[in-house]
Amino acid sequence: MGAFPFTLHATDGKARTGVLATPRGDIRTPAFMPVGTAGTVKALTVEQVAATGADILLGNTYHLMLRPTAERVQRLGGLHRFMRWKKPILTDSGGFQVMSLSNISKVTEEAVTFQSHLDGSRHVLSPERSIEIQADLLGSDIVMQLDELVALPATGEKAADAMRRSARWGERSKIAFGERDTQALFGIQQGGVDEALRRESAQRLIETGYDGYAIGGLAVGEGHAAMVEVLDFAPSMMPSDRPRYLMGVGKPIDIVEAVARGVDMFDCVLPTRSGRHGQAWTWEGSINLKNARFAEDDSPLDPSSHVSASRDYSKAYLHHLVKSSEILGQVLLSWHNLAFYEALMAELRAAISEGRMESFRRGFAARQSGRDTSV
Amino acid sequence: MGAFPFTLHATDGKARTGVLATPRGDIRTPAFMPVGTAGTVKALTVEQVAATGADILLGNTYHLMLRPTAERVQRLGGLHRFMRWKKPILTDSGGFQVMSLSNISKVTEEAVTFQSHLDGSRHVLSPERSIEIQADLLGSDIVMQLDELVALPATGEKAADAMRRSARWGERSKIAFGERDTQALFGIQQGGVDEALRRESAQRLIETGYDGYAIGGLAVGEGHAAMVEVLDFAPSMMPSDRPRYLMGVGKPIDIVEAVARGVDMFDCVLPTRSGRHGQAWTWEGSINLKNARFAEDDSPLDPSSHVSASRDYSKAYLHHLVKSSEILGQVLLSWHNLAFYEALMAELRAAISEGRMESFRRGFAARQSGRDTSV
Repeated sequence: MGAFPFTLHATDGKARTGVLATPRGDIRTPAFMPVGTAGTVKALTVEQVAATGADILLGNTYHLMLRPTAERVQRLGGLHRFMRWKKPILTDSGGFQVMSLSNISKVTEEAVTFQSHLDGSRHVLSPERSIEIQADLLGSDIVMQLDELVALPATGEKAADAMRRSARWGERSKIAFGERDTQALFGIQQGGVDEALRRESAQRLIETGYDGYAIGGLAVGEGHAAMVEVLDFAPSMMPSDRPRYLMGVGKPIDIVEAVARGVDMFDCVLPTRSGRHGQAWTWEGSINLKNARFAEDDSPLDPSSHVSASRDYSKAYLHHLVKSSEILGQVLLSWHNLAFYEALMAELRAAISEGRMESFRRGFAARQSGRDTSV
Repeated sequence: MGAFPFTLHATDGKARTGVLATPRGDIRTPAFMPVGTAGTVKALTVEQVAATGADILLGNTYHLMLRPTAERVQRLGGLHRFMRWKKPILTDSGGFQVMSLSNISKVTEEAVTFQSHLDGSRHVLSPERSIEIQADLLGSDIVMQLDELVALPATGEKAADAMRRSARWGERSKIAFGERDTQALFGIQQGGVDEALRRESAQRLIETGYDGYAIGGLAVGEGHAAMVEVLDFAPSMMPSDRPRYLMGVGKPIDIVEAVARGVDMFDCVLPTRSGRHGQAWTWEGSINLKNARFAEDDSPLDPSSHVSASRDYSKAYLHHLVKSSEILGQVLLSWHNLAFYEALMAELRAAISEGRMESFRRGFAARQSGRDTSV
C-alpha cells in the first residue's frame, strides 16, 4: 500500500492529521511544501527554509530539465545534494509549466513537444521521460505522474478527454516507475469542476494504484467558491489511507478550507512570490509593507514566531526595505511568509488533534477577513 | 587623545595591527567595514554579516537622510536598533554621494544645496547638519567630517581650494561635535595626488585634532599606480597613535598595498556589488561564476571558510543561480565576498603580528594576478 507508511493520528470531521514517513524524514500532515522552482526556494537559504519548520520542498521538473538540465543535476549528485536540502523533495511532472510557460508545438497521446521559454530549444516530455527525470536524474522522493491540463473554461468534452488521457498517462507512469522502496509515485485526479468526471478519474487512479493521490486542475482561475465546491466531494473520492495533495493551493484561507475537507498536502508559490512584492501574510490577513501606515510601526510581524524575519524586524524597517527595493526586504518577507504558512499548518495539526477544527476554521476565516471582533 | 582607545599590538615596516576599542565592541585593525548603504548591507541579514567576522559597518548619511530620513531613524531608536546591528557603525558625511548622485544646485562656504536623486526634493547639507544627522539622529559611533571633493582630473588650484575648504569644514565639524565620550570624530585629508597639498591638509587636521584620520579623494579614478604613490607618503603624515582610514578602497590588492603603507581601516562596496553581479573574490583573484567552466565544478569557493556561503555550496550550484538570476545567487556571493574580505583582514593582522607582512604582500599579489607557481 505505498512506498511510504502513512499514519493518521487523529481525524476531526473530514480533517486528518498524521505523518507520512520517508527515508529522508517524516512529513507531518497537513503539510505545506515551499516551492523551490529552479533548485532554490526563491531568495532563501535552505537553513532559512528549514527554520520555518518545512518538512518537504517542491521542485519544478520543467525549470530544472531546461536549466541546469536533469542530466547535469544527476552528475552533480542529484537535486538534494545540488541545492543542499536533506529532507524530502516532491517534484511535479513538468506538465503544468509546459502548458503555462512554453510554446507548445504539439500534444499527442505519446508526449508533449514544446519549446523552452528560455532559448526556444525543442524538448519532448512523455510520461516515461517525466518519471526518468524526476525519479532517476533529479532523485525526487515523491514523483508526480504527467497529466494533461486544459485551460479554463473548458467544455465538458475537453475536460473529459484531458482527464482520460491523464489516466492513461498515469498508467504509463506507473509502469515506468515500477516498484521502488525509497521513492513514491502520486497519481493526479482531473475532471475540472464536474463531479462525475472527478469520480471517474478517482476510480481509474485507484485501479492503477498510487502511493498518494493529488487533486489537479484547481487553483487555475475557477475562483475560491468553485474550488471549495469541488473540494466538498473530490478528496473523499480518494483512498483515506493514502495522502491527498491539492496542487498549487493557495491562500491561507484556501488551505484551511481544504484541510477541513480532507486534504493533507499543499504547495504554492504565493508566500514567496507575494513576499518578493512587499506583501506579508499574518493571522489578521495580508498586509502590504509599502503602505505608509507602517513607516513608523516599530512592532514586528509576529512577536511569537521562532523565525527571525517574523520576530526581530520592525514593520518600519521592512517598510523602508520594500520602499527602497532592497533585496533584504524580499528575503525577509519571503522568509516570514513561509514561516507563517508553516505556523498555520502546525496550528491546523493541533486543532485537528484536539478536535477543534471547526472552531479554528471559523475563527481563522473571521480574523483573515478582518471580521474578528473578539480581541 | 580621542574618544576611543587605540592600541597597536605590533608593527611590521609601516604596517600596523591593533585594536580600536569602542563602547559597542573592539575593532580589530587593519579592519574592513562592509557598506550598509541604506540601513542594510545589500542582500544580507546582520547575522550573515556578523558571521563574516566584521567588527564594524559603514552607513551612508546621504541615503539615510533622504530615506527613511534621519529624523525617522531617530524616532525608531537610532540606526543600530533600526537595522539590528549591535556592533559599531561608522557613517560617512554624505558629501561623497551628494557630489556623485544628486543634482547639486550650489556649493558655498556655508553648505551644499542639492536635489534628491529619488524625488528631486531640495536639501541642504552643512558641516553642522552632517554632524547632527550622524551623531545625534542616526547615533553613529564614528562620525566623519563633511569634506569637499573635486572631480578628477583637477587643477592644482582646484584641489588646493577644496582641501582648504575641507579643512575649514572640519574645524566647524569639530565645534559642532564638541566633546563626546561614546562617539568619535574623524577628519579627512584631501589634496589629490599632490604631496605638498596632502602635507598641508594633514597639518591642518592635526592642528584641529581628531579621534582618527581619513585619507579622502582616492579611489576616484586616479588608478592603482597613482593611488599607491600617494599612499607612499600620505598615511605617515598622520599621527601614528590614531587610526588611519582609507575611504572607499578597494580591491583586495589595493587593501594589502595600503596596509603595507600604514593604513588601518577600509570600506568599499566592491565585495557586495560584485557579488550581486556574479563575481567572487578568492585567494587566486576574482572569478565570474557565469563562466561555463564552473557549470559542473563541484568544489566550493573556499572549503576552509567558516562561512556557509563560501564552504558549503558548489561553484556549479552558484553558476546555476547566477545564470538563472536567482536572488539566492546574489545573497551567497555577497556573503562569500564579505567573508573573503574579512578573512583577508585576519590574514593581514596575523602577518603583521608575526613579522611577515612583506612576504605575505608579495605572495598575495602573485596569487591574485595568477603568477603564483608555488602550488
